[in-house]
Amino acid sequence: MKTLSVESGETSHGTHPENSMINGVTILEFLLRFLAAGGTLASAMAMGTAEETVPLLSQSVLLNAKFSDLPMFTFFVIANSVACAYLVLSLPLSFYHIIKRADKNTRLILVTFDTAMLALVTAGASAAASIVYLAHEGNANANWSAVCQQLDSFCERTSGSLIASFASAFVLILVIISSAIAISHC
Amino acid sequence: MKTLSVESGETSHGTHPENSMINGVTILEFLLRFLAAGGTLASAMAMGTAEETVPLLSQSVLLNAKFSDLPMFTFFVIANSVACAYLVLSLPLSFYHIIKRADKNTRLILVTFDTAMLALVTAGASAAASIVYLAHEGNANANWSAVCQQLDSFCERTSGSLIASFASAFVLILVIISSAIAISHC
Repeated sequence: MKTLSVESGETSHGTHPENSMINGVTILEFLLRFLAAGGTLASAMAMGTAEETVPLLSQSVLLNAKFSDLPMFTFFVIANSVACAYLVLSLPLSFYHIIKRADKNTRLILVTFDTAMLALVTAGASAAASIVYLAHEGNANANWSAVCQQLDSFCERTSGSLIASFASAFVLILVIISSAIAISHC
Repeated sequence: MKTLSVESGETSHGTHPENSMINGVTILEFLLRFLAAGGTLASAMAMGTAEETVPLLSQSVLLNAKFSDLPMFTFFVIANSVACAYLVLSLPLSFYHIIKRADKNTRLILVTFDTAMLALVTAGASAAASIVYLAHEGNANANWSAVCQQLDSFCERTSGSLIASFASAFVLILVIISSAIAISHC
């Protein structure tokens, strides 16, 4: 009876109204994955190419700022690049789920990596956000001065890349939730 | 035929060998949730109570360091406290899943909040980690000096709370994965 029941369940996939909703969720997941890949690529590139050189009048030397000056910015670029590479590689599998939506195991593999990538992107963005905040505001208690007065363009660029990265993390949360919804209806 | 098939599927839950595996995953999820609640509580308390006062000989004044001196440490305490409160509140629902494991909707709600909490805890831990790194190493490019030479005990305490918080984030990843496995077999 059980074998028969599973077969009857699978046969009804294409016609049941609930299934078209789930097909919609799977397609949405694919599009969100695409969006997150774009977001992480943009933030990695914006941070990786951020560079500014300003003259220091008092010392007659040039002050050069680039992302590799701070290990948190380097980590940010690496984290977003890794997440972007993973998201691009996951697109074919995500597309495969649109066609064959009952494959639970590959969906579970994707959810596992998606969750790890969410943690990675959030860690990179938050670590860099701390530094950007300090660069803007400084901290009197630790005697760390704000450096954004001298480095306007560099600070603007890094702030922009943070926004893209946090947006990608939010999209990754939506990817995980839509994956879970799809898995629950497999 | 479909109604009959669903019923026959539910009746077989208790006996099928796969189901005892899933019961094990659900119990594991409950225990991991407990562990993550303990980890976030410990890290919030360790950071929240970190305070050190050292004399500054050159200026004949006392240097006092506490978590609220830096907004990232305050965010860390808030993020871990919120996650801890959520995890404690989610325990009864998680326990309910051990008894009635086929409830997909409540599981999906938990996965959604778990994912948001993972992002929150990771963000708090990474933001604070940036500051702890700067306090230990300083940064010559930004002219930020290392302050941990003066504040040994404060720096040790904050580093310890970071470890507990990152461990909690890792446990939350495991919670999400085991939830997804449980959902896939509902």
